[in-house]
Amino acid sequence: MVSGEDKLIARFFKPLATHPGALALSDDAAILEPPAGHELVLTTDALVAGVHFFPDDPADAIARKALRMNLSDLAAKGAKPLGFLITLALPSDVNETWLENFSNGLWADAKEFVFPLFGGDTTRTPGPVTISIFAFGSVPHGKMIKRSGAKPGDRILVTGTIGDAALGLAIRKQPDVAQSWKLDSASSNHLAARYLLPQPRVRLVDVLQAHASAAMDVSDGLAGDLGKLCQVSGVSADVSVSNVPLSPAAHKVLASNPRLMDIILSGGDDYEIVFTMKPDDVPTFRARAAMADVVITDIGVVVAGQDEPRFIDAVGGTMSLSRKSFSHF
Amino acid sequence: MVSGEDKLIARFFKPLATHPGALALSDDAAILEPPAGHELVLTTDALVAGVHFFPDDPADAIARKALRMNLSDLAAKGAKPLGFLITLALPSDVNETWLENFSNGLWADAKEFVFPLFGGDTTRTPGPVTISIFAFGSVPHGKMIKRSGAKPGDRILVTGTIGDAALGLAIRKQPDVAQSWKLDSASSNHLAARYLLPQPRVRLVDVLQAHASAAMDVSDGLAGDLGKLCQVSGVSADVSVSNVPLSPAAHKVLASNPRLMDIILSGGDDYEIVFTMKPDDVPTFRARAAMADVVITDIGVVVAGQDEPRFIDAVGGTMSLSRKSFSHF
Repeated sequence: MVSGEDKLIARFFKPLATHPGALALSDDAAILEPPAGHELVLTTDALVAGVHFFPDDPADAIARKALRMNLSDLAAKGAKPLGFLITLALPSDVNETWLENFSNGLWADAKEFVFPLFGGDTTRTPGPVTISIFAFGSVPHGKMIKRSGAKPGDRILVTGTIGDAALGLAIRKQPDVAQSWKLDSASSNHLAARYLLPQPRVRLVDVLQAHASAAMDVSDGLAGDLGKLCQVSGVSADVSVSNVPLSPAAHKVLASNPRLMDIILSGGDDYEIVFTMKPDDVPTFRARAAMADVVITDIGVVVAGQDEPRFIDAVGGTMSLSRKSFSHF
Repeated sequence: MVSGEDKLIARFFKPLATHPGALALSDDAAILEPPAGHELVLTTDALVAGVHFFPDDPADAIARKALRMNLSDLAAKGAKPLGFLITLALPSDVNETWLENFSNGLWADAKEFVFPLFGGDTTRTPGPVTISIFAFGSVPHGKMIKRSGAKPGDRILVTGTIGDAALGLAIRKQPDVAQSWKLDSASSNHLAARYLLPQPRVRLVDVLQAHASAAMDVSDGLAGDLGKLCQVSGVSADVSVSNVPLSPAAHKVLASNPRLMDIILSGGDDYEIVFTMKPDDVPTFRARAAMADVVITDIGVVVAGQDEPRFIDAVGGTMSLSRKSFSHF
């Protein structure tokens, strides 16, 4: 006797369970041991159709985004990915094609990031597709990069470019907006793609571990996330807005709509990393990041104090952001 | 700036994060290290309102059931609970009272089972309350009890009593049924309580680890779950139906409705443990289980073969079960 659930697992998920500790998904639990001298870093994110992604997004992109959100958290903590568990609540209108595409997406990123599946649970729901990923990675003992290590005088850096995903989401919600922003289709597509499929900075794990004093991934908006990091570290920050790295597409949007800097600095879904380090470490870090092929940019400095980070514009004024970060509640 | 989500976490979840590795929920990830000489056992279960529990069940009972489903999985694997992560998708009509009761339920069981919270994620959903628990425990190296170790000749045992929760669910769905079963209110309440709040057999962890050749928790019905264990072990089983342990309430139900043995053997939500061991080990195991205050019952024997387990009735016939276990798909 094999139930429908068992068949579904055997067909769509068992091929992803390449680690021996997953026991080929034939048991109720998996076995995991961190590498010698290492401890585990644990993180989890949930995604709900209609909240974190559009129900008609391609299923493989949904799966990849779910994994990448968690890979981004691990990378920001200096943790090497080890694997994940997944729970999947599926409405009855999800068909085999959707599931096949979803598992293909998981498979592609499990392979790309050497991030095997260790187990999971599938269930029906009368609601929207709901995905939870529980991700674990490893760091040498005591080496997880926390939010709490930023010190006055440390430089503040970010990976990649900021704000693309928030602009991409605006386009995804209302495609007309790309015209009103005078965007060519290549730029518009770039922004939409950055929303659909984040790029977790896993290649920076070792370098961050070696040099960063504090780090977190930028998932709810740079302004708010840097604010959280500063709060836990007991410091403040001065950020030079003109130094915040933007893609050519974001520059084009800003050229005709300067006030959208607000969305760029406070919108979510960047999945870049914001981190701090001693000024003396920056040149070495920069060289190693270049070898890992990740663009990094110095955007400001950690300062003493308890205030919200200041975002300083080209004429020396402090920007007033309408909403600093995304919150569901 | 503190977002609504941060406030919610600080108020309802931070008090549960008593392990130093949880960093008081002030970071993006938690740190975990298995005790020396041990490895981790990982498991996950998702619960959806209207599927796994009734939306108007008390929120503290929902929380406790969510934890206990996972604690039951760990116990069946011989793993000592270490902690959990949770994701929570909440519709907008969930109010603070519900959340307070929910976190009180988590707190009660986190305390009872020494099972601290390590982290989580909360989000809005347009659908029903959806909860995912990622639970981890520890076992000495190589000591996780798998489904795969049952050998012909091994005895088959179960903890507690079987079928109460399935009968309790029937009563919860249609309270009239208790009258038609001629149940007094104490018996009816007993069955309903067994559905609402399972009793994970965490106290048996050490004894199971020492003696069991194979084990799994009975969550989808004894017949089907024993079938899964046998399949992975490459064996079959002969179970004596009259030996399957029943509560006094279940006995009363059966007295007037003998055909309900079908539901008792194939209904879900028992959260007891079915396990196998060499006959010679049974007396020692029985004595140790009694010291742990857990009732265990010998229900049959592992036999060679690939057939479904046979459930043999009082006159030596094999019962034909209408549905062997619960499946969502």
